[in-house]
Amino acid sequence: MTIKDIAAYCDVSVSTVSRVLNDHPDVSPQVRELVNEAIRKLHYVPNNSARSLVSSRSTAIGVVSRGVDNPFLSSLIRVLSREIHDRGYTMVLHQIPTQADEVQAAAMLEREKKLLGVIFLGGRFNYTEDELRQLTVPFVCCTYTNTFGDLREDAYSSVSIRDEAEAGRAVRHLVDHGHRRIAVVLDDPADNSIGQLRFQGYRQALEACGIAYDPALAVITGDYDMGAVYAGVCALIDSGAEFTALLAISDALAIAAIKALTDRGLSVPGDCSVIAIDGLEISRYTVPTLTTLCQPAEDMARESVEMLVSLIEGTGSHRHMLVQTTLRPGGSVARRAE
Amino acid sequence: MTIKDIAAYCDVSVSTVSRVLNDHPDVSPQVRELVNEAIRKLHYVPNNSARSLVSSRSTAIGVVSRGVDNPFLSSLIRVLSREIHDRGYTMVLHQIPTQADEVQAAAMLEREKKLLGVIFLGGRFNYTEDELRQLTVPFVCCTYTNTFGDLREDAYSSVSIRDEAEAGRAVRHLVDHGHRRIAVVLDDPADNSIGQLRFQGYRQALEACGIAYDPALAVITGDYDMGAVYAGVCALIDSGAEFTALLAISDALAIAAIKALTDRGLSVPGDCSVIAIDGLEISRYTVPTLTTLCQPAEDMARESVEMLVSLIEGTGSHRHMLVQTTLRPGGSVARRAE
Repeated sequence: MTIKDIAAYCDVSVSTVSRVLNDHPDVSPQVRELVNEAIRKLHYVPNNSARSLVSSRSTAIGVVSRGVDNPFLSSLIRVLSREIHDRGYTMVLHQIPTQADEVQAAAMLEREKKLLGVIFLGGRFNYTEDELRQLTVPFVCCTYTNTFGDLREDAYSSVSIRDEAEAGRAVRHLVDHGHRRIAVVLDDPADNSIGQLRFQGYRQALEACGIAYDPALAVITGDYDMGAVYAGVCALIDSGAEFTALLAISDALAIAAIKALTDRGLSVPGDCSVIAIDGLEISRYTVPTLTTLCQPAEDMARESVEMLVSLIEGTGSHRHMLVQTTLRPGGSVARRAE
Repeated sequence: MTIKDIAAYCDVSVSTVSRVLNDHPDVSPQVRELVNEAIRKLHYVPNNSARSLVSSRSTAIGVVSRGVDNPFLSSLIRVLSREIHDRGYTMVLHQIPTQADEVQAAAMLEREKKLLGVIFLGGRFNYTEDELRQLTVPFVCCTYTNTFGDLREDAYSSVSIRDEAEAGRAVRHLVDHGHRRIAVVLDDPADNSIGQLRFQGYRQALEACGIAYDPALAVITGDYDMGAVYAGVCALIDSGAEFTALLAISDALAIAAIKALTDRGLSVPGDCSVIAIDGLEISRYTVPTLTTLCQPAEDMARESVEMLVSLIEGTGSHRHMLVQTTLRPGGSVARRAE
C-alpha cells in the first residue's frame, strides 16, 4: 500500500494525497474526508518521518526523570512525549528513584541508546563541570537550574521557577491571611534540590515577616512519600505543637497532609489552612480544593524540548528561562480565626 | 576511564570490579563499597548493554498509551519503563488521546522506530485481524483483551482483569451494604473498551440482585475527564434523582464524584457511598479514603513485558493472563441509613 494506491483509489493526484497527509490547508474538506476515509479503509500507514529513511541516524532524546512517585513529573512527561514526537524525534524515557544519580543514568543511556540530547526532570541543583563531562550531548534541566553547582551558564540550558521566591510567596499568602504559626512539610531540606530551595524560601519569608523559625513546625520525612508525610503530620499534631497553617512543598504532599489533619479531627481550613506549590489537575478535586501555586507545566515542557532541539539541530545556543507560577485559589486557605 | 583503571585505582582484579558491576554476591561488602566509591569518584560509566555493541540492532519496544489523563496508566508506565530497561531494551513511549487510533499510531511507530514489539495500554477491545495486519511485530494488550474483536487467541497476548465481573463485584459490595439505588459514573458505555464492559457488569449485577436498571442514575460524560464527571454528578443531584450509592468506573472519576457530592452538601458515605475500580496511591488520601478494587498494576506491567520479551526472543508464544483485583476498604462505603 503506497500513496499512489490511495491516489488511484480516490481518483485524485498523488500530490493531493500528500497535501492531506501533511495537513496542508489547500485541500477542500470533501477531498480531505475522501482521502482520510480511504486511508482508514485501506489501512495505509504513512511513513511520516523522513529521518527514519536514514536508517543509521539516531533520533533518540533521553528523558531522565528522578522521583518516580511524583505526579507533577508525570504531567510533564505527557507533554514532553507529545512535543518530542511531533518534532520527529524519539523519546527514550528512563525513570529513576530519588536516591539514584541522574547524571550517571543519563551517561549510561547516552551510550546505550545513542542519544542526541537529554532532558532532566527533577534532578539535583549542584552539578559540577567535572561530573558533567560524562555527558557528551547537550542537556536541559527541566523544572530546575544549577543553583548550587559550578556549571557555566553557557554549558547547559534550564527552565525553572524561582523556587525560593515562590515558596516565599506561598508563606506571604498565609501571613496575609493572619497566620503566624506556619508549619512546613518537605522531604529533605538538604537535598540540593527543590526541597532545599523551597525550605530556604519558607525560612526567609518568615524572617522577612518578623516571624521566628520554629524547628518544631518542620515536618521532614526524608523521602518523597505520601505515607511518610501522613505519619509526619499526625506526629506533629500529636506533639501538641501549635500551628494554624501549613505549607507543603508539593501538591501530592499537601494532599497527604490534609488527610492527616482531617483524620485527627482538625478541619481544613477552619483549624488549619494549607497551601502548596505545583498545581496538579487532581488538586482541584480534593476536599477542600487545594489552594496552590501552579507551575506552567505545559510551557515548561514545551520550552525544554524547543531548547534541546535547537541545540541538536545547531540553530540555538544554551539558554535559561525563568517562569512564574499562578495562584489557583481553592478552599484550603482561610483567614485565621481570632 | 575503563574497568582496568578502576581495578588499578582500588588495587583489586578486573574480575572483582566486574563482579561488583554485575551485582554478583561473591564480593565482600568492604570491597564492594571500595569499588563503588571509586566508580563515583572517577565518574566511570559502565557500558552494561552488550546489545549496544551490535549497533545496527534495534532494542526498541513501543508502549502506546491511549488516554493521556488517566493516572492509572501513569502508574503502569512507571513499571513498564523499569522492566523494559532492566531487560536491556529501550522503551519508546507514545501517548495518544482517547479519540485517536492506537493501532494506526503503533503501526507508524513500528516503521519509524524499528520496534521489536508493542505494548498497548488502555486500548479498544474490538481489534479485527484485518486491521492488525498493519502491525508486523508481536504485541501485548495490557489492562484489556480482545473481548469484542475477532483476533485469534494465538495472534496476540493480553493481561487484564475481568472488567464485567469486577464491576459486578463492586455493585454487590454496595448491595451487601443495603444499597439499591446505585448510580454509575462512566465516560462512554459504547466505547468497545473498559467503559462498556464495566457498564455491562454494573447492569448485570443489578439485575442479578433483582434491581431494575434506571437510566436516570447513569452519569455518562462522553469524555474521560474529571471536570465533566464533576458537572455530571452535580446535574444528577440537581435533577432530584434518588440514590444512596455510586460506582465510578475508575478512581480518578470517583475522586471527582466525591468532590461534587461534597460541594452539593451531601456527605460521603453518610448520604452516599462511593466505590471505584483501580487502586491509585492517591486514593488512599482522599477524604474519606476511597473504597476501591485495586488492580495489581505492578504484576500486570511486569507480566506484559515478560510476555513481549519472550515473544521477541522466541522463547515463548502468545498467552492470555487474567488477574484479580483486591478490595481496599476505605471510608467511602457505609451501610445504608434506614
